[in-house]
Amino acid sequence: METTKTHALHGGVLRYLKHDSAATGTPMTLSVFVPAGEGPFPVLIWLSGLTCTEDNFTTKAGAYRAAAEHGVIIVAPDTSPRGEGVADDPAYDLGQGAGFYVDATQAPWAPHFRMETYVTDELVALIDAEFPTTKTRSIFGHSMGGHGALTLALRHPQLFRSVSAFAPIASPTRCPWGEKAFSAYLGEDRTEWARHDAALLIEGGAAAGAFDDILVDQGDADSFLTDQLKPELLVAAAEKAGQGLTLRMQPGYDHSYFFMASFVDDHVAFHATRLKA
Amino acid sequence: METTKTHALHGGVLRYLKHDSAATGTPMTLSVFVPAGEGPFPVLIWLSGLTCTEDNFTTKAGAYRAAAEHGVIIVAPDTSPRGEGVADDPAYDLGQGAGFYVDATQAPWAPHFRMETYVTDELVALIDAEFPTTKTRSIFGHSMGGHGALTLALRHPQLFRSVSAFAPIASPTRCPWGEKAFSAYLGEDRTEWARHDAALLIEGGAAAGAFDDILVDQGDADSFLTDQLKPELLVAAAEKAGQGLTLRMQPGYDHSYFFMASFVDDHVAFHATRLKA
Repeated sequence: METTKTHALHGGVLRYLKHDSAATGTPMTLSVFVPAGEGPFPVLIWLSGLTCTEDNFTTKAGAYRAAAEHGVIIVAPDTSPRGEGVADDPAYDLGQGAGFYVDATQAPWAPHFRMETYVTDELVALIDAEFPTTKTRSIFGHSMGGHGALTLALRHPQLFRSVSAFAPIASPTRCPWGEKAFSAYLGEDRTEWARHDAALLIEGGAAAGAFDDILVDQGDADSFLTDQLKPELLVAAAEKAGQGLTLRMQPGYDHSYFFMASFVDDHVAFHATRLKA
Repeated sequence: METTKTHALHGGVLRYLKHDSAATGTPMTLSVFVPAGEGPFPVLIWLSGLTCTEDNFTTKAGAYRAAAEHGVIIVAPDTSPRGEGVADDPAYDLGQGAGFYVDATQAPWAPHFRMETYVTDELVALIDAEFPTTKTRSIFGHSMGGHGALTLALRHPQLFRSVSAFAPIASPTRCPWGEKAFSAYLGEDRTEWARHDAALLIEGGAAAGAFDDILVDQGDADSFLTDQLKPELLVAAAEKAGQGLTLRMQPGYDHSYFFMASFVDDHVAFHATRLKA
């Protein structure tokens, strides 16, 4: 891993890093915040939304004060492979910047768009190898990254102590963003899509008993709420399956980082409690 | 004032605004955060550094949690007039994005580059007219904006209850950024320059008795420390003049918003205490 930038931050150190990924076959970038002290520290992985790189969360979410206070490492990877020779699409919601945290099976995406393997296999191991971690971790994210956090936790519960999300795409099989991305990355077989749909995974009892609660914050002034996000599908699935899930509808809040900055302290505390339990 | 964007934030409301400025003869942009509640609230004005617009502080500093907690309005204006018909320079440290918070007297800058009048006359009145303020205010800023906060407070002590700065240009008459900008905006008469130099103003007893303390944070890993910022000149001037001034050298911190995010809570608290005294 090559450190491209280093900043002192809240008594700890924030690094921007770059490494050649075996999973994606491309260079991948990320940021890692390590609190002051010797550690070891538990790890909280953040997954960003459409169009983002690792930089959006890192500069805008204001999460590191709480991370320093609780003694938690925060890791924020990029949202897709990038570069020449990597497939792309002119739309903002497909291709580079829109990896959807799945392993693509379809051309032209399959060779590099392997974000599920990247996060759950390569990144997790790399962070434990390179930083003073307790080898325990949790995961959270926003929008497409909220979908990513929920589905990766539900599909790999042995890897994560807890999961939370801001304005997640609750059921990508039932919204335009998800239908478009899953068609492209996974093909037309909807049984394959269902394996990457948080609401359907919960309804099907995935990770039953693994997570006592799942925290979801959603702004009620979010312009994507009705067509794309549909958090009510998570609530219905959780009730049906007996999965603990707390949906907090936040009055007046939109889809921006200002929304996340307003509630990120609660999420860091939610994970810190479970990471240290 | 036209509201261009509105975001719920930490229980309050953040607005991006645009208005036609009489001082600069151009449209000017700014952000204003108003905490939850009826008010009235005291006002804290933020002045940004070179290359910034109102957006850098607004998205990156993480100051609004503390502002919400203390019940303080934060106003962040742009750093210069902008647009076609406004003089500019290809360098990052002169012209648009580099107004230096003075009223230019020299061509081609004089017609629009009137940032001192803009902030101390027009902006202050506009905020009191448009928002629920107590008509009391303080001022802080970073780098060029640290210079702006210090010099505007020292030149207009009746307007401000307190002043603080992150990595300010302590003495623009004695560093390359300041020499270049003051030559361009104020001409070659160095007696005029001295009226906009924080260290020289303090040394000359400006605003004597107005401010019990001036808080300055400076990272010791800031790459501009030795050549451009020179906070030791502030300390020497304050000692000579008997002005209260606290310089905190922060080990390992650089010139970025990560540095400011790490200590901004202290600055908001410093001002809130004095605004409510």
